[in-house]
Amino acid sequence: MAQIVYLNGTFLPESEASVPVLDRGFIFGDGVYEVIPVFAGRTFRLAGHLQRLENSLAAIRLDNPFSADEWARLFNELIERNGAGDQSLYLQVTRGQAVRDHAFPVATKATVFAMSNPLKPIAPELLAGVSAITLDDIRWQYCHIKAISLLPNILMRQQAVEAGAQEAILVREGEVTEGAASNIFVVKDGLLRTPPTGPFLLPGITRDLILELAAANAIPYQEGRVTPQELKQADEIWLTSSTKEILPVTSLDGEPVGTGSPGTLWRAVWTLYQEYKTTLSRGEGAG
Amino acid sequence: MAQIVYLNGTFLPESEASVPVLDRGFIFGDGVYEVIPVFAGRTFRLAGHLQRLENSLAAIRLDNPFSADEWARLFNELIERNGAGDQSLYLQVTRGQAVRDHAFPVATKATVFAMSNPLKPIAPELLAGVSAITLDDIRWQYCHIKAISLLPNILMRQQAVEAGAQEAILVREGEVTEGAASNIFVVKDGLLRTPPTGPFLLPGITRDLILELAAANAIPYQEGRVTPQELKQADEIWLTSSTKEILPVTSLDGEPVGTGSPGTLWRAVWTLYQEYKTTLSRGEGAG
Repeated sequence: MAQIVYLNGTFLPESEASVPVLDRGFIFGDGVYEVIPVFAGRTFRLAGHLQRLENSLAAIRLDNPFSADEWARLFNELIERNGAGDQSLYLQVTRGQAVRDHAFPVATKATVFAMSNPLKPIAPELLAGVSAITLDDIRWQYCHIKAISLLPNILMRQQAVEAGAQEAILVREGEVTEGAASNIFVVKDGLLRTPPTGPFLLPGITRDLILELAAANAIPYQEGRVTPQELKQADEIWLTSSTKEILPVTSLDGEPVGTGSPGTLWRAVWTLYQEYKTTLSRGEGAG
Repeated sequence: MAQIVYLNGTFLPESEASVPVLDRGFIFGDGVYEVIPVFAGRTFRLAGHLQRLENSLAAIRLDNPFSADEWARLFNELIERNGAGDQSLYLQVTRGQAVRDHAFPVATKATVFAMSNPLKPIAPELLAGVSAITLDDIRWQYCHIKAISLLPNILMRQQAVEAGAQEAILVREGEVTEGAASNIFVVKDGLLRTPPTGPFLLPGITRDLILELAAANAIPYQEGRVTPQELKQADEIWLTSSTKEILPVTSLDGEPVGTGSPGTLWRAVWTLYQEYKTTLSRGEGAG
């Protein structure tokens, strides 16, 4: 089935969707985005994604083109047109089309693009453990903005792939920040830790949910700085994202993490996450 | 006259040129660019721009889609179709269209886009002196790559504009790097200085030409680290770029630079630059 996308007010086949060459998304990477998982036709943690979108737009000084209700209607129609089920919904807002000049154009209409593709279940081999490498974080200083200027992330992710790893875990000034496209958790002696939010990492929706689940289930946790040394000595390392959910990292820079197998706390929290997801997608909870 | 642009093998009116939404330029800012001035229908310092393009492409691991001769033919046709004269030629190469995934796609064809717009003479009021503000450099660590992931530059340039200034001069770890879209020179006691090339700044074609002109005309110069303090105490500050050429900065963070008027060395080098340009565009020199 041809995927249907949304572009500036119109639903159309992806193969027919194009943007003017002078769109500031294409010329400057001047825009922000979100990726929202969809389970059984329903967006997951929508409020959190829309709040983060609002924050990203405000940080780059772009008005939000839609209200939360308008976004929800747009997403629902897009999901429906693509056959419901489990999907990965992507949306992008750019500063629109203008004569090329770095400073903001005086009056342009934002470009709004959204697509939603089938979301495959997480492959069992990933749940058996993935490998990661550590890299110096080469990105800019405003990593809390979910910006489409992603070349640094791309180069680091590619470096991980070429090293046979699934993700690059980034280190800036002696602290672990996040993965190239994920957040990072470590477990040591039963304590779950993740780096605090701030300008050097994206506040992940899945990251926040994990902290909620930990709090609700009396799992000791802490938001705090994680050094590369602590990463290396961790009993467990997890990487989290909306589409990867929670993956156990069992190999770091070629060395086993902890026992070299997915940890017991990972299994417990992953199970809590699946239960939460199932409850929500049955419509029994509030997204 | 409608501008004619080049896109993936075709010359067409700019208003008809568009790229698929899944172009990695639009989705990821995954591409590089050049801006080449054209005087009297001839590209200026073409070899330097093509070498830098080659370096940028290599740094992001993208094959150069064309040989130098092929680029030159493409540019000449584009310039001709837009009425020759003085133009500002822009070219962009992205990693092409692919399913959205951070890592490099296995096989895609690069997207090549080029446009060329009339280049107006530098406004006399700019030659009378521009103002700049200093800002912390928020960009990534690979600023030697002329990448289209330009959101950081945009935010800094906009901040300058809103402060009533023409440019932001960037400072990283106690050193002046460059402007948001220019290189920086300072003059103190007759010595011309500019920060050395490296990962934190773009090696400007105009910057290099100025060093050549200084060498050829026995003007004392030095590539060396410039501190914010040296910037503040400079007799002259210049900003340079292919389209702005050499502009005297006469106000920095609201304070006059030197006498508050364009400096004598600026005037001398600006004149040498104009002479060089005239000679080249008459076809008497080698570009």
